[in-house]
Formats: sequence, structure tokens, C-alpha cells
Amino acid sequence: MNAEILCVGTELLHGDIVNTNAQYISKKLAEIAIDVHYQSVVGDNPDRIRKAFETGFSRADLVISTGGLGPTQDDITKDALAEYFNAEMTYNESSYQHVKEMYSRFRKDLPNNNKRQAYFPKGSIILNNPNGTANACIYRGEDSQGNIKTGILLPGPPKEMEPLIDNEVIPYLKQFSNQVVYGEKLVVVNIGESAAEEMILDMIENQTNPTIAPYASAGKVIFRITAKAETKEKCIELIEPVKAELINRFGKENAYVTESGKVEDKTAELLLENNLTIATAESCTGGMVASRLISYPGISKVFMEGFITYSNDAKMNTLNVKRETLEKYGAVSEETAKEMAYGAARAAGTDIGVSTTGVAGPDGGTEEKPVGLVYICVYYNGKFNAQKIMATGSREIIRDRASTSALDLVRSAIQTN
Amino acid sequence: MNAEILCVGTELLHGDIVNTNAQYISKKLAEIAIDVHYQSVVGDNPDRIRKAFETGFSRADLVISTGGLGPTQDDITKDALAEYFNAEMTYNESSYQHVKEMYSRFRKDLPNNNKRQAYFPKGSIILNNPNGTANACIYRGEDSQGNIKTGILLPGPPKEMEPLIDNEVIPYLKQFSNQVVYGEKLVVVNIGESAAEEMILDMIENQTNPTIAPYASAGKVIFRITAKAETKEKCIELIEPVKAELINRFGKENAYVTESGKVEDKTAELLLENNLTIATAESCTGGMVASRLISYPGISKVFMEGFITYSNDAKMNTLNVKRETLEKYGAVSEETAKEMAYGAARAAGTDIGVSTTGVAGPDGGTEEKPVGLVYICVYYNGKFNAQKIMATGSREIIRDRASTSALDLVRSAIQTN
Repeated sequence: MNAEILCVGTELLHGDIVNTNAQYISKKLAEIAIDVHYQSVVGDNPDRIRKAFETGFSRADLVISTGGLGPTQDDITKDALAEYFNAEMTYNESSYQHVKEMYSRFRKDLPNNNKRQAYFPKGSIILNNPNGTANACIYRGEDSQGNIKTGILLPGPPKEMEPLIDNEVIPYLKQFSNQVVYGEKLVVVNIGESAAEEMILDMIENQTNPTIAPYASAGKVIFRITAKAETKEKCIELIEPVKAELINRFGKENAYVTESGKVEDKTAELLLENNLTIATAESCTGGMVASRLISYPGISKVFMEGFITYSNDAKMNTLNVKRETLEKYGAVSEETAKEMAYGAARAAGTDIGVSTTGVAGPDGGTEEKPVGLVYICVYYNGKFNAQKIMATGSREIIRDRASTSALDLVRSAIQTN
Repeated sequence: MNAEILCVGTELLHGDIVNTNAQYISKKLAEIAIDVHYQSVVGDNPDRIRKAFETGFSRADLVISTGGLGPTQDDITKDALAEYFNAEMTYNESSYQHVKEMYSRFRKDLPNNNKRQAYFPKGSIILNNPNGTANACIYRGEDSQGNIKTGILLPGPPKEMEPLIDNEVIPYLKQFSNQVVYGEKLVVVNIGESAAEEMILDMIENQTNPTIAPYASAGKVIFRITAKAETKEKCIELIEPVKAELINRFGKENAYVTESGKVEDKTAELLLENNLTIATAESCTGGMVASRLISYPGISKVFMEGFITYSNDAKMNTLNVKRETLEKYGAVSEETAKEMAYGAARAAGTDIGVSTTGVAGPDGGTEEKPVGLVYICVYYNGKFNAQKIMATGSREIIRDRASTSALDLVRSAIQTN
């Protein structure tokens, strides 16, 4: 079975929002080995919606749409589907009760054309939407050419659509697939993308299950190891030896695996596993290092305190950075980064202190200390590990890159200790 | 002129990445009043790429593609375009020099099939790509049915594609449009979405230029005011009176306008305009409030210091929160939030202190203090302004919502002072 995802919404065509629905559905279908061949987006235009369904069914077995289930005359995905399958629209009383209840819950007046949301192509499986007025539906049947096609119509808002995919659509579709696909991400640091690819080229070329493929990710080198089998457990069995060989080739200090591919997750896991407490001292990243670590549930056991010492006064008063250090080397220097990391660990009484200080731009750069120059440092076990980074890009990209490097320096300090 | 955006990339169909390219291009085309009727995504499959171009040109005057300009046999967007227009592929020496120079800059070996990247449909305008090996191109001509169509082929990586759109494609396309579209976002706080809509329903229904439309944004009520005219200046002239009337209806404390729609931008602007210094004290948001403020260029003039006091010890030692307060009311309480805000302002010597303390989950909730409960407080001018929030959703959504509210509380404290 192969699929097309059809997202309906003028706000997508105007570029007001990014199409996270298409990504979410694609990812979930990939996990049960249903191939998505096309994604498409069309506005709230009845004619173009009808044509988009025709185009979709002409090239895919399954079309999953999002949006177009509202109460207005422009909301016509159900009508388009019924027309495609030459099915009647029939009234569903329990969906009407659902609409009424939802409107009263949100204390909104029931619009005049409210009954539209209770009509579905005859023969549909109706999916109850606990987070919005619009129930969803699945229709499977023969089209005018005698081909068996499946149409699934979902609401547009992600907080309504995502639970329906997880709880209704994927369980339904599993009958058409007897395989699962499972992947993990190997993050490689300290090695450039092409050098890393070269080191494992033979593996990339000769592996078929799991496959190894470079994974697009700004500023990071990530390989995705993906296996296909009857169960997730069998996938993991296939992945394990390949993973071990990859880490062996790159070296433990240069490569690690996470399901998410996020360095903060790996660093947080290591801190918790080893029961190591940490404090952060940030200048240019301004809380981003702490915020990313704190996104990890349960981190409060080891994350004690963070200091965002943006001004020189704050660096001196809060972290005990020496005035002479700031005067002699400047706030953006390895020496200041070291005193900040040490100062954070000392002030918070933690095992580890990590610091960042740099020029995030767009202004404030000099010839000697240009925009993008950042020093980071980890203090752990009486030792300092400092690094100089030259990042390019916008203020946000520079801050993101610096916080990624700082989090990774903590990881590497723990793993190579 | 109407357009279709065609993004080529298997990683999109797998849901590995979200399609920011389609959003970026759509937004830029909307600004010059070129309507996008469809967006589509297809994998790196030569047959399906060819068909996608045919489908695109059958329903749009202009097809802009991203991806498929690489050196491999799967990279065939240029061939597909040439076939559609029945044009030859011709070699372009300066593009070949560009490829060679780029490969040497990234210290990569030039692949054997390197010359592919120097071939273009004969008659193309070649666009120099300063950030990657693949030059882009524009082809305008008659198709086999005698219709004039335009194809624009861009590379896939956003950091290569975006500058080409801004510097080459939009200036080129302006000849086909004599209008610009310009919009601003009005953010409404303290008023629910449907109540807000009702308050301005007559304006929404009767305005044609500018239009006023609700704008989808998680947890925020935003209206987009959009005008169409010959110049941006004329658009702004059209928007001004409508904006004033909207702010008048909602009240200055409940509504504000920014181009980005981001509360941190408005708050940072107000701090800088009024030369007010600020310090942050965060528990559950863990640096997110500070990090969002610090994303604003030039904020170092007023942002002095941030404290991420995750543990009770940190709250007492660093912010001088009283032990009795923590024991009597708990860390997640209005009283603690107040002492944190005051403590931050006092420790950093700033005009304003802002604090957050709450239960971000997924664990740690109790019946009395459930996951999602957050207290925020602003200390300014000797006065405290505290707020209790009950957020729902994941750990990240709760933290995001709490930091948005904290930033907005600072805005409102300044604007209503």
C-alpha cells in the first residue's frame, strides 16, 4: 500500500504556518512501512480540493487528508470523497450530538450550518475526535475504475489530528502492513561530514537491512540506522551489531546514539546515570544551554542552578570571575570561560560547571573578536576542558551552535573521564 | 500569475524533516501577490519527478522546485524541466568552475559525475549559488500546448535556497506582479479567541483592504492585518487606521502589534525604548524566558542577569527566597514567585525582575499542585504583579506557555505603568 498526504488550508499556501501535519503523518506511516509517494497542499477552494483528491487517488492507494472538516461551505473534503466513490452523504446522529457538546463546552454558539459536520459518506468508519467538533472518517471502497482505494479524512489542527493518527488511523492501517520500521540516530562530532562518510562508505554501500544513511541536520553530522522487520524488537536486534561497529570506527568520544538525535538528551541521560550534578554559566547563549537540558524530564535530580551572566558585573559578582581576567583577556576569552565554569560549579556546589561566552551578533564584533566567536568550557573533576568555536550565521544560529557544542562538551567530558 | 511549489526529497516523505522550504517560498510569493495554488512533495524518484512537473505545469503558470540539483543520477530536476519544454541540455563552463571551486573550498573530492551540475536547459537564466555547489536556474518558454510557462529550479538546503529566493527569484518575478502584500500581527491577550472575534466581527466582515483574519498560533490569539497596494508604504497607510481601531476596541493592555507576532520582540523593544533594565529568575522554564529575550539583538543594554534556580537551595542562596516561604507555601506558589522576582531584581540591581515557578511534568504533580500549574510574577516600580497559570500539554508546551505569559506580563507592566 502506498499513500499520498493531502493537506487542505489556505494558511499553508500563504506560508503563514509550516506543514507539520504532513511530517507527522509521514513519520507514522514510515514506522509501519507504508510508503508515502506524494504530499500535497491545496487551499480552501472546492474545485481544487476535488481535483486534488482525484489526482491523489490516481497515483496512490491511500489518501489521507487534513483540514476541510469545518462547518462552512468551503469545508468540502467529505463531499469530495463521497463524489469520488459515488457514495451518498448520510446523517450521523451521534456525530451531531458530539458537535453540540463540543460547541457548548467551548461556550460558542452553534453555527446555522452546524449539521454539515454530522454528515459522512455512507459506509464510512466514523472516528470520534475528543479534541474538537469535527469527527473524522475512513472510507474504503471501489472507485469508478474498479480499484480499491482508501480515503481518510482528518481535522487540520495538530492537537486534534495527532491523537487521531496515533489512536485510530495507525491501528486501522496496520492490517495492510506486516512490517515495522525502526531507526536510531548516530551523532558524530569532531569529524567533518565527508570524512565521516568516507570512514564508513563500505558499510553505507553494503548494508541493506538495516540501512545507514546520512541525515540532514544543520551543523551536525548524523547517520540514521533504519531496520525493517516484523517487530520493533527484531529491528533492534538487527541494528545492534551495526551500531557497535559504527561507534568502534568513529571512536566512543566522537559518536553516540540516541533515538531523538538530540545532544541534550544524551547529556541528560549520562548526568542522571552517573548521578553527576551540574550548573551552567551562560553569556551569549543566554539560558539556551540550561533550557535545553531542562527539557529532559526528571533532570531536576541533577540540574541544580544556572547563571545567565550577561554583564561583566554579573560575571564578577555572581561567578567570581576576576576583574583582571576580564580586563586582560576580555569577556570573550578562554580564561573568562574557565573562570565562569569553575564559578558556576562552586556557587551551586555541583560536580560539573559548563560555560559559554561569545559574540552572537549581529553587532558587537571586532577584528580580533568577530561575530560568531564563542568560547565554551567544562569544569569537571578538577580539570578544565575549553573549546574555541567560530560559528557563522544569524544570531540564533550562532547561539544554537554554541549551546549544542557546550552540551556535547559535557557529554564528552563524562564519557571520556 | 499563479504558482505551484514542488519540493523534491525522500527525507520529506519519510517525515525526517519538516518542509520549511515550501513555507518560505509561499510567504515570499504572497508578499509580491503571486498566488500559490498548490504545494507538492515528491521523492528522489526520476519517474515521479517527471510526472510531478507535468502535473504542476498543467495547473500553474509557474513551478518552483527545490532539491534534485545534486551530482547523482537521481538528481534530475533539470532534465525533467528540459524534457517538459523540449529543450536541449547545454554545458555551462562557468558553472563547472563554480562546482570545482566549491568542492575545493569544502576540501571534498570532485565526484566523477561532477559535470552534471554544469548542464542546464538551453536558454536558462543561470543563478549563481554562493552557498553550495549547485547553481540554480530559471527557464521561461512555450510548452508543447503553446502555453507560456516558467520553471525555477532551486537547491534543497534552506541556507542555499533562501538567499537565492531573496536575491534572485523574487526580483525576477516582480516583473509579473505590480502589487505588494504587507501584513502585521495583532496579538490579543487576556481575551479568549471566540470572545475576541466577536468583539471585532463587524470589522472582520466588512474590511476588504486591509483584511483582518484570525491567525493560527498555539495558545495565542493573533489577528493578521493584511493590505495589498503598489508599495509597502501604501500598505502601511491602509493598515494604520484599522490597527488603531482594533487596539482601541481591545484596550492597550490587551493588544499589541508586532511584525513577527512574537511577544519577546515587543517586550525587548519596550525595555530598550524605556531604558529599563531586567533580570530573570526561572524555575520550571529553566532559562527559556531569558533565552527568548536574549534572541533580540542589542538586548545586552538592558538585560543584566538571569538566574535559573531549580533547587530550593538555589532559590534561597542566590535569590534570598525565605526558607519559611518555601516551607509554608512550597516552591510552586505565588509567594515564592514574588520573592524570586524581587530577589532577581535586587541581586542584579535592575529595574525589573520577572520569575517563573511551576510543575512542568510529566512527573512531580500532586492533587493540590498538578502538572501545568505555574506561578509567574513581575516586580517593577515597587509593585508586584503575579499570575497563576494552568497550562495543559507536554513538558515543552507547558514551559513555552509559561515563558510566553511571563514575557507578556513584563510587557503589560511597562505599558500600563
